[in-house]
This record gives sequence, C-alpha cells and structure tokens, in this order.
Amino acid sequence: MSTPSLPALTILKGRSQRLRKGHPWLFSNEVDMTPEAKALPPGTLVQVIDAGSEQLGIATFNPHSLIAARMISRDPHSVIDQSFLAGLIGKADALRSLLFPRPFYRLVHSEADGLPGLIIDRYGDVFTVQANTAGMDRLLPEIEQALTALFQPRAIVLRNDSPVRGLEGLEIYHRLASGTLDGPVEIEENGVRLFADLSDGQKTGWFYDQRPNRAFIASLAKGRRVIDLYCYAGGFGVQALAAGADSAVFVDRSAHALGLARMAAEANGASGRFSQHEGDVFKVAADLAAAGETFGVVVADPPAFVKSRKDLAAGSKGYRKMARLAAALVEPGGFLLCGSCSHHMPEDTFLEEVSRGIAQAGRSGRILWRHGAGPDHPVHPSLPESAYLKSIVFQLD
Amino acid sequence: MSTPSLPALTILKGRSQRLRKGHPWLFSNEVDMTPEAKALPPGTLVQVIDAGSEQLGIATFNPHSLIAARMISRDPHSVIDQSFLAGLIGKADALRSLLFPRPFYRLVHSEADGLPGLIIDRYGDVFTVQANTAGMDRLLPEIEQALTALFQPRAIVLRNDSPVRGLEGLEIYHRLASGTLDGPVEIEENGVRLFADLSDGQKTGWFYDQRPNRAFIASLAKGRRVIDLYCYAGGFGVQALAAGADSAVFVDRSAHALGLARMAAEANGASGRFSQHEGDVFKVAADLAAAGETFGVVVADPPAFVKSRKDLAAGSKGYRKMARLAAALVEPGGFLLCGSCSHHMPEDTFLEEVSRGIAQAGRSGRILWRHGAGPDHPVHPSLPESAYLKSIVFQLD
Repeated sequence: MSTPSLPALTILKGRSQRLRKGHPWLFSNEVDMTPEAKALPPGTLVQVIDAGSEQLGIATFNPHSLIAARMISRDPHSVIDQSFLAGLIGKADALRSLLFPRPFYRLVHSEADGLPGLIIDRYGDVFTVQANTAGMDRLLPEIEQALTALFQPRAIVLRNDSPVRGLEGLEIYHRLASGTLDGPVEIEENGVRLFADLSDGQKTGWFYDQRPNRAFIASLAKGRRVIDLYCYAGGFGVQALAAGADSAVFVDRSAHALGLARMAAEANGASGRFSQHEGDVFKVAADLAAAGETFGVVVADPPAFVKSRKDLAAGSKGYRKMARLAAALVEPGGFLLCGSCSHHMPEDTFLEEVSRGIAQAGRSGRILWRHGAGPDHPVHPSLPESAYLKSIVFQLD
Repeated sequence: MSTPSLPALTILKGRSQRLRKGHPWLFSNEVDMTPEAKALPPGTLVQVIDAGSEQLGIATFNPHSLIAARMISRDPHSVIDQSFLAGLIGKADALRSLLFPRPFYRLVHSEADGLPGLIIDRYGDVFTVQANTAGMDRLLPEIEQALTALFQPRAIVLRNDSPVRGLEGLEIYHRLASGTLDGPVEIEENGVRLFADLSDGQKTGWFYDQRPNRAFIASLAKGRRVIDLYCYAGGFGVQALAAGADSAVFVDRSAHALGLARMAAEANGASGRFSQHEGDVFKVAADLAAAGETFGVVVADPPAFVKSRKDLAAGSKGYRKMARLAAALVEPGGFLLCGSCSHHMPEDTFLEEVSRGIAQAGRSGRILWRHGAGPDHPVHPSLPESAYLKSIVFQLD
C-alpha cells in the first residue's frame, strides 16, 4: 500500500529535541503555525517534519489545542488505517491477556499504548470507547472496524461524554454504536463477580483502575466488619465480602449504584452480609461515628474532589475532612484506605492532607500501602504526571 | 509499677506544634539545651515537657545528634521496660501475621512501629536486630529479653553494622547475641523457598522489602527467559523460576550470594533452569548484549548507588547507565524492572533517569508498575520521605 500524502507540519528550529527523546506531544508554540496549518480541520493526520526537513513521523493535529500534535507513529511511512489501529489494539490486548486471566480490563490507555487520546475498556465481548482528542474522534470509524475485526463484539458503546472533549471542540454524547445491551454487564475482577452498567445509571462503567488496591484491601478483610464509602458499584466492598469479611456496609448517594453493588454481593453468595446506606457520605459517616459504630476496614474512595487546578485548595480540604470522618470509624488496629482519582492532586499533597485528617480525628498509625492504577492503565514514560490514581492504606492504632 | 523519675527535656516556646500533630522527632534547635541536658549520656530516656510545663510523653535523647529526641511514648506515665517493648513488638508481629502466611518478614520498622531507630527482621525463630540510635542501643538488653519472652528464639543476631550508627557515636559490629546458627536460614516469600545467610557473607540477611515487586515480576515470568542482575541471594530470579520461567540467569559479583541463589533454585526444583555469571553487572550486561542475547524479563535491582546527598549526580548517572544496559537485553514486548533502594534518590528523579537510559538504548515502552516496599516496611505518616524503595516495571516495544 502506498503512503497517502499527508499535510506537513513543521517543527520550529531547535524545538524537536523533546520529541526525538520520546515525548509524544508538540505544543502549539513549537510548530510553524502557517495559514495552511491553521486551516487544517481539527484532528487531521500530518507528517511531522523538523526544521531541517527530516521526517519524524505521523501525528494527529489540532490547530486550536495547546497540545497541537500527538504522535501516532514514528515511522513516516505508516498508513494510519483500520489495520494500523488493529495492530496497536491487538498488541495492547496481548499485554492485558498476559496480566489478567479473564478479558475484563482497560484495553487501550491513550499515549501509553501508542494511541493518544483513545481509551477503550473491555467487558468481555462488550467494549466502551472514549475519543478524547479531535484526532481520535476522526478515527472512530476505523477504530470500530478494528475492534470488530479483532473481537467480533457483542456491543460497542461510545462514551464520548468526557469534559476534555469540550477543550478539543468535540460534541459530548454517549450512545450505543453497534450491537445490543440488555441490562448490566457481568465482569470479573480479582476472581470476584461484579456488574457494570454501560448504558445507563452513572454512565461511567467500571473503574478497573483500583484493581490492585481492591486486592490489597480484600487481603485484610477476613473476619472484619467493612464499610465501603462512595461504594459506587461495590468494587471494594464486594471483594472484601468474597474474601471473608464478616459484613460490609455500602454507602453511596446513588440508588442505582447501590443496586449494582447488591447484585454483585448476591452473585458472590454474600447477600446476607450486605447492607447499605443511600445518602451523602460525609453525613452518613458522621452519623455512624456519633452512634459509636466502628469497622475493621474502612474504604473512602470518592469521585474526584479536584477537577481542575483552581479546585486544589477546596479539594484538599475535602480530602482532609473525608479522612477525618473515615478515621473516626476505624476500630483500633483496623485499616483505612483513602483514594483520589484527581489528576490535579499530587500524591504527596494527598498523603499530607489525609494524614492531617487522621491526626485531626485524634488517631495515629502507619502507612502500609501506596499504589496507583493497575497495569492495564500503563503510563507513558514521558508523561509521568498522567498517573492520576492514588490509594493509600493506613493501619490505625 | 510507679513511674521512674526521668530527666526532663524542655521544648523551646512555640516549637511543640509539629510534635503535637504526631511527628515523632525534636530537632536539637527545638529543645532547651541546658548544661544538664548536654551532659546526659546519648540515648537517655527523658520526659518531654513543653515550655508551659505540660508533659508530652517520653523520648530517647541524644545531645550530640541533629535529631535530638525521638518519641517512644505519648503517655508520660509509660515505663519503658521489657514489657513495654514486648507490647509494641507483639503488636507489630500481629500486623505481620495478618499480612503474611508464614513468619518471615520485617518485624519492626522503626518509627512506623513506634520504636524509633529499631529494625528487627524475623526469619522464623531467628531474629536480626539493628539499633540505629543511641536510645535503642541502650535498650538492647530489654529488646533481647522481650524477643525471648515473645518468641523463644533459636538465635538473635545483632546486626549493628549500619554506618548510621557512626552518626550516633555508636560502635559498629555484627555478632550472634544468643543461640546458635549453623549455615543459611531457610525462609519463604510469596510461597517460594529461599535462603538467607545471617552470620556470614554479605551479612545483610534478606531484603524483604522487594516482596510485592518480586510477586509482580513472577506474574510476568511464565514461559520467559529471565535475567536477574544484582541477584544477591536470588529473590527475583528464583521466584520467577518457581512461577514457570523457562530459565533464569543470575548475575552478581559475589560468589557467596550466587551460591545462595543456586541453593534456592535447587530447593524449588529448578536447578536445571539456573545459570550464573559471577562478575560486574555492567560488564556482564554489555557482553551479553554484544553477543545478541535477549530476555523476556530483565531485573536490575542494584545496591544503593546514592549513599549520601552528594552522590546524587553520580548515582543518577549510574542508574541511567544501568537502565540503558539492561534495556538492551529486553526482547520486544518483554519486561524490565529497575529498582533503587537509595534513600537520597527521589522516585520522580529515579523514573526520569531510568526513562532516559531506556531512550538512550533506542527503546520505547510503557510503565506498568511503580511500587515501594511491602507492608512489613510501614511508613510513619509524618515521615513520608523515609520510604526509600522504588521499583518500576516497564514493558518495552
């Protein structure tokens, strides 16, 4: 197949070094924004050329984005079509197959899998796709074809509802692209049956990222009373029940999420040890503490409190308060997990805030575990700041 | 039992807040260094009193150390004797018993277990003890009594050969304190039989800290050819063999360490898949690369390259070179672990240097795993900087 002729994007003189060392991005002030470049539709594939006219590879280009170009191939002769995409997706799947016994995982994690802006989650033969850049958005038809060729999916869901699409000037939507879905999808994580609703409810599917942290919590849960704050579909709590927890209390403000957690507890033969509180976690936790309730394992893994850099102060206070309220529920010698999925909350700051909250609750203890997302969420070595998940487990005295 | 009268150590006005929030240390410029305080023998137990004469607890005190006082109890009425120490050691053992199925672990990890400066490793019924502060050194007889009362040890080894003892003005030595040892001690880690020599050889016993990282590497090793650079007693490589690696090459400059690795391979029925290179790792790795050898899993976990802050530049270069040489041995799609146990090498700098080395080898890839020491090496929440171990696993293209 011959190389189709792509428009050229020229890097300004002296600005190609970071890219040559492996970084996958070019910023808008690093490329020659000619009138022709500015006129290219967002997401156009371009040949990246340095000031000395050497071809450095192929990128997706968005003239309206601060991150102007994202490399998709270091080979200037690559043809970016269904077969190219199937190659990268297949390689990503091979890695996950080696990591996990069953096909339930994040299949493609953006730059780290060579596909900038593309997120694909796999739920057996159901796939959810997020295209978070204009470049990936334009490639969606080929991506769907590649998934079909590789996996013959029962359904593909386009979860194009991330706010980051707004920054790229893309439409926000969530829809079934092909196939059919009837009710929640059953998955397996760490050997435990769980349910993800891909078509409805909170529309966020399953958060595979906490898998290793759920396994660690489960390893501590046997014979203990567990409370899963911000339980969502029950990942931590149900795995704790499956590992032999005496009982687990699930707390969330979403009745729909609690319903999924209950289904999962039932599927694992643990419905007799399941109970729930529908409501605001801060309020429920304060009420339980006032009633003198304590737990051997307390999990507090909320949605992002820090959604942008300007939320850092308020979000930090939120994490501190969460840790204070959660610590009050931990029995002496018990365990507390505090999680944060906020991109804009650095791990050291998170640890500091959570430790302050624990101290404010009058508790001391020790850190046993600090870990991020599982290995199906790999990180590009040039983008260490893209590692967003932080889970810290304490034992309290 | 009545409280024995301890000398008082007064905190300077306005300097007690950090301690009150849970930090375990007082620096020399925060306490009233009266002639009486200066005259106290290093390691004396003192009553810590704030400027308003409130009793804040009991500390060990060293007038010659920058870290002047280390809290050992927040209760001013505690009696720091064999029974007090047995209480804390017993609590630390209860946590480890819950974490691990067999009694092979770091039993006491200093401040995080409430015993500043004390390190105890447990090898079944054999214990190694390190007292790294003058305070713990003075308590050694009571610590030995506490261990005897709790565990009836077969042997207790005093591994008081850490250079940090020099800073505290303490003697450097290594000796059997009680019991007998005949040859290496068999231990179990992640279900695999291994050997630690506590009396001889490199005198460092077993590094339990890498346990979770060894488990992750073992999970990737099945059907692959593995090389364990700086193998020491074979922790990574033997666990990879036990997990089904096709073969493992062990590289170390110590024949004694290689002998322990070989014993462990034999004990796990894997001696037919064991081979070794005795020599300098940089040289062996370069020679193997020149011969075109590649491996599915490459582990590079050296002794500390950065032993003090002034070594940071040279050590960084060393880690970069190590990563470059190791990356050259990784087959496409294979895995590379780079480890650092240097206290003075921050994790982000380590990641950056290692990533540079990988790029210098002309390789790209993704980070799958970043993790520190196992949970038997807990961290005091006020001393996050004491988390020294960093292991990063990459998949290379």
